[in-house]
Amino acid sequence: MKKISIQLLLTGDELMAGDIVDSNSAFLAHALAESGLSIARKVTVGDDLTLLTEEISAISKSADILIINGGLGPTVDDLTAQALAQSMDTSIEQHSEALTQLSQWCEKRGAQLSPANLKQTMLPKGVDIVKNEIGSAPGFMTVLNGCTIFCTPGVPRELKLMMHHQIMPQIVASLPQAQKTNTIRLQVFGMGESQIQELLSSNIPDWPEQLSLGFRAGLPSLEVKVTAYREQDNQLQQTYVKKIAQLLGDHLFNYVDEKPLSLQEVVLNLLADKGYTLTTAESCTGGLIASQITSIAGASQNFHAGFVTYANESKQQLVNVNATTLAEYGAVSEQTVKEMALGAISTAKADVAVAVSGIAGPDGGSEEKPVGTVCIAWGSASDMRTITLLIPGNRVLFQKYVASIALDLIRRFLRATTSTPTYVTQRQVKKEVESL
Amino acid sequence: MKKISIQLLLTGDELMAGDIVDSNSAFLAHALAESGLSIARKVTVGDDLTLLTEEISAISKSADILIINGGLGPTVDDLTAQALAQSMDTSIEQHSEALTQLSQWCEKRGAQLSPANLKQTMLPKGVDIVKNEIGSAPGFMTVLNGCTIFCTPGVPRELKLMMHHQIMPQIVASLPQAQKTNTIRLQVFGMGESQIQELLSSNIPDWPEQLSLGFRAGLPSLEVKVTAYREQDNQLQQTYVKKIAQLLGDHLFNYVDEKPLSLQEVVLNLLADKGYTLTTAESCTGGLIASQITSIAGASQNFHAGFVTYANESKQQLVNVNATTLAEYGAVSEQTVKEMALGAISTAKADVAVAVSGIAGPDGGSEEKPVGTVCIAWGSASDMRTITLLIPGNRVLFQKYVASIALDLIRRFLRATTSTPTYVTQRQVKKEVESL
Repeated sequence: MKKISIQLLLTGDELMAGDIVDSNSAFLAHALAESGLSIARKVTVGDDLTLLTEEISAISKSADILIINGGLGPTVDDLTAQALAQSMDTSIEQHSEALTQLSQWCEKRGAQLSPANLKQTMLPKGVDIVKNEIGSAPGFMTVLNGCTIFCTPGVPRELKLMMHHQIMPQIVASLPQAQKTNTIRLQVFGMGESQIQELLSSNIPDWPEQLSLGFRAGLPSLEVKVTAYREQDNQLQQTYVKKIAQLLGDHLFNYVDEKPLSLQEVVLNLLADKGYTLTTAESCTGGLIASQITSIAGASQNFHAGFVTYANESKQQLVNVNATTLAEYGAVSEQTVKEMALGAISTAKADVAVAVSGIAGPDGGSEEKPVGTVCIAWGSASDMRTITLLIPGNRVLFQKYVASIALDLIRRFLRATTSTPTYVTQRQVKKEVESL
Repeated sequence: MKKISIQLLLTGDELMAGDIVDSNSAFLAHALAESGLSIARKVTVGDDLTLLTEEISAISKSADILIINGGLGPTVDDLTAQALAQSMDTSIEQHSEALTQLSQWCEKRGAQLSPANLKQTMLPKGVDIVKNEIGSAPGFMTVLNGCTIFCTPGVPRELKLMMHHQIMPQIVASLPQAQKTNTIRLQVFGMGESQIQELLSSNIPDWPEQLSLGFRAGLPSLEVKVTAYREQDNQLQQTYVKKIAQLLGDHLFNYVDEKPLSLQEVVLNLLADKGYTLTTAESCTGGLIASQITSIAGASQNFHAGFVTYANESKQQLVNVNATTLAEYGAVSEQTVKEMALGAISTAKADVAVAVSGIAGPDGGSEEKPVGTVCIAWGSASDMRTITLLIPGNRVLFQKYVASIALDLIRRFLRATTSTPTYVTQRQVKKEVESL
């Protein structure tokens, strides 16, 4: 089976100037990967007619498919139609279907067709329209030098709908022996990509060539993707997904073949299942855990209140930490976070809590408790657990990682898991014997 | 003055797969822009020796400067040195200076030189080393077909140091009539790019061609950049920066020629100046304001405690909102946020507070208070102000924008400004007459 060569051409001065970061090509790569396709080469140029025309001509001679992104807008900087026309050695003219769609688009919004809008209907002779469901700029396509060229809008949500509904079906239909691919994603927290790769290659040395294995690294979670390209391999896929799930154990927090869930969504679902409410008492994360939970719609059902107790006095006033505990063990101690969590539960009348206190840095560390030290308490009033970890990294990364660990510990508590997460094995600060 | 043609070549399978978003090229564009330079064209390919070699050869024939990013690591996927050697028609050999630097790097860390590390010292014959101050992979440079080629590491912080300390000085020194360019950035909150552009073009129709005007859009703040390319234009630059500052008024929250500050840093600096502490009582932002403040090192000096009062009972229990206020006016009302802010000040013993309560959506809206409605209270115990705004957008954008507005209102309070911010003019929900 000949490998299809797909190239991207991105255009826009703001891309070249670095004023926007290109997230469209990551989206395009993922959309294509869902069908087992990949991008061979990507070229980015500014809004320059000569450069654009040269690139289109050159790429059309070597690629099977060219996706051009950007330059469809109404301003003079938007040059894709003109450049494509020059590459095709033709002129631009008003495209009647584009005009009809645009008129309908304006009508729906009670807006007048402006001259700027009309520019968007001036397309190279002979191109076909690719419908833009939500924006004013129509997409269009043609074949040049045997290469199928799709011109797509730079606005991410317009691009996404156009790819999913118009372009991917066309590309998939044109593939030899087109098959519906099927990807299952396993979402993992607490293990890195290389760690997972090692785990899998040593335990599953016989990975079948009918399935592809991919990773998508991210903070805080990571995705392992198992793709089957033919329907007849779906059973095999299930078998291998189960093998992987077993190896990942409790590090696997969700597995899906549709929309993935975040760690906080999984925690909220578990809370909802049990009818529990959660509260937070945060020192070093300063509200980040609460804000991650409340970024999810409907969080209010199971999260009623949270405390940011940054200063020692706040720990006493807001969540009833004893002054003697602070004096004896310090703000960053398992004793203090335990009292913070219990105090939060009692003040907020919640069922479970997580409390964190640590040294985010860059200042504030000591020999005994260096920057990166964090104490966490999690659980219920009758079953409150504590731990001390050492988390490297700068302030913002430390805060993000600690917030994710806090959520993961609550998830494990709610699921009553008994295994030890890797971040504990690797980062726990062992307790010294406190008194002889 | 001939325009220097600079091109980028980025390499990495993870870039092509969209598993990481390319932020390096935005950084490179900004670093070059500081010296008035721009990137003409950017090509991205996966870890493929043939493709890489072809690109290097082709680009070297048309560009003055080529920056290659990525592919310097220790694994078999890292192919930059090999590809450059093939383009140069030479072989790779152990580079003695690279070996010395790498040995020192290992020694510092008490680590052994591994075979994988040693691969990083195998470079094309005749290249010069570009020092990597913090990583194991040395950069290197050469001249091919009249094009100066710099090979740089993909790890962002290694790239940044190498660009600032090694590569930019070399590029600037090679420029004809090299001049120190000078950029002044004005940081703005509450006005959009098109709004500012209109304001400037209608009030400063005579923009001088010696200065360039740029924008860097972002959430929540926006940067207006005024660059002078020659020392003799610095006076003119000052004049125009002052004109712009006057037009922006209190929307300008900071102006700098060095590192920009975030809105929360400006607020923390103002609090420190006055010796005040701030507290937060957050409903719809769920801890986001607190977490933005505490993301700044040293925040603990002026921020001791915050409250996340998501449920009505929490508003009563944590910050003493009256049950009758909630019953009479609802959780999303100026009366409630005022009591939240006053309660937070009293419980946390703070000097100033900001409180927010709103409908983040997608559910929970009503005809009277649609999704996007938010009430904010800000000020001190003796001078507490309130407002109701209607902020469009999805849940996460709503939360971010509300958090930024809350910070900006505190900034304006601390600076005792008297002007009305644009977001109030445009988004205020006017109070109805409450009783007849």
